[in-house]
Amino acid sequence: MGQGRDISAAARIRDQLRDWIRAEGLRPGDRLPTEAELTARFGVSRPALREALKGMELDGMIAAQRGSGRYVAPAMAVQVERPITAFESVTEMLGRAGHRPQTRLLQAGRVPSPPDVAAALGLAEDSPVWRLEKLRLIEGQPLLYSLEYLPLALLPPDHPVFDWSGSLMALMQGLGLAPVMSRATVSAVGPPETQADLGSLGAGGPLLLVAETCFTAAGQAVIRSLIYHAGHQFSFSFARK
Amino acid sequence: MGQGRDISAAARIRDQLRDWIRAEGLRPGDRLPTEAELTARFGVSRPALREALKGMELDGMIAAQRGSGRYVAPAMAVQVERPITAFESVTEMLGRAGHRPQTRLLQAGRVPSPPDVAAALGLAEDSPVWRLEKLRLIEGQPLLYSLEYLPLALLPPDHPVFDWSGSLMALMQGLGLAPVMSRATVSAVGPPETQADLGSLGAGGPLLLVAETCFTAAGQAVIRSLIYHAGHQFSFSFARK
Repeated sequence: MGQGRDISAAARIRDQLRDWIRAEGLRPGDRLPTEAELTARFGVSRPALREALKGMELDGMIAAQRGSGRYVAPAMAVQVERPITAFESVTEMLGRAGHRPQTRLLQAGRVPSPPDVAAALGLAEDSPVWRLEKLRLIEGQPLLYSLEYLPLALLPPDHPVFDWSGSLMALMQGLGLAPVMSRATVSAVGPPETQADLGSLGAGGPLLLVAETCFTAAGQAVIRSLIYHAGHQFSFSFARK
Repeated sequence: MGQGRDISAAARIRDQLRDWIRAEGLRPGDRLPTEAELTARFGVSRPALREALKGMELDGMIAAQRGSGRYVAPAMAVQVERPITAFESVTEMLGRAGHRPQTRLLQAGRVPSPPDVAAALGLAEDSPVWRLEKLRLIEGQPLLYSLEYLPLALLPPDHPVFDWSGSLMALMQGLGLAPVMSRATVSAVGPPETQADLGSLGAGGPLLLVAETCFTAAGQAVIRSLIYHAGHQFSFSFARK
């Protein structure tokens, strides 16, 4: 229990310190403040700080030189601000970009799970799933088309009263099933197959498809989603090591 | 110096242990072998093993419970085998997929650096760069089109004797400038603008463009590349947390 707290404190300090290094514009070779300065700046204990620094050393973000302190390591040069590996909802992602999209709920309803969805969610084939089809628009222009599936068994029996046009993440959180991580693939595709009217989505060129299986903190698969991004409007960043 | 060795040993053990957990098919909640068993299995020292385990705890891959050992944590559920975040050459990537591609060198030559290339490589605009245009084919089918730029100043004066149709990574390694990491973006695009004959590339649909700036271990930007992947043949995986 105490140990669990230490680890999450160290992980939080590591993230804060990484963001601070970026915000300050520190470059590879620049010296970090002393442990005393860092504990004061972030209001943390020295053991938790040391765990965080050790973790950053392991990840190659900083380097320690005995007797002369710690330095920003070359690998910080490839850190990007919001990598494709950061888990966030579509609403969060668009909000960060300064967008307040409208959501058009195209369809919501119960279907037998398609084989790929069943496999991703660990369900028996044809198990009932709830299927959501949405379009997100900014100033009338369609930006994203999404297909989301969740196991029907996760929903309380009165699920039809939910507002399915709202944030699915928030809804799952309310059910105690907040997704916090995912396994995903990205590919380039043409327009999705659907009966729905997607307006000009895809007219601007190819789409970037992110196919994602979302898990709770306990490792339970709760959402399978296919998100088609208007290609000329989206790119995602990442570091490779 | 000694400390540097410890850290790289810990990082190597962490990677081995992660691969081993995957290869064994261990699932979240499964118990890890004891420290004694792990030091024996991987032939490593206990302090290095402990650093590695601590780093994995920080990254949420394993969890420790005082008095009862270490367990695979739920976040292992989202680990993927070769994530988009793994740095590797095109040749390595295709080789892993069992492909032995032919390389067709379309063009090689000195050009003034385009603004985006100059910015990525930290060069003054119009600085001379070496530009390589290549097509990779498998059984006659074009799979990838790539544009690669490197600062001319990095090359020895006799550079025209290089075999530019070979691996650029190997060539850079020979110059003591091996790229080991990168910052990249991925997007969906149509066919690239080029005078060259790309055959059927792009005929199968949209392309997945990875635009990448590659750095040496010392953090020096040495290659800027744009790689267009035949979209229907490629997808990349990653974990989000």
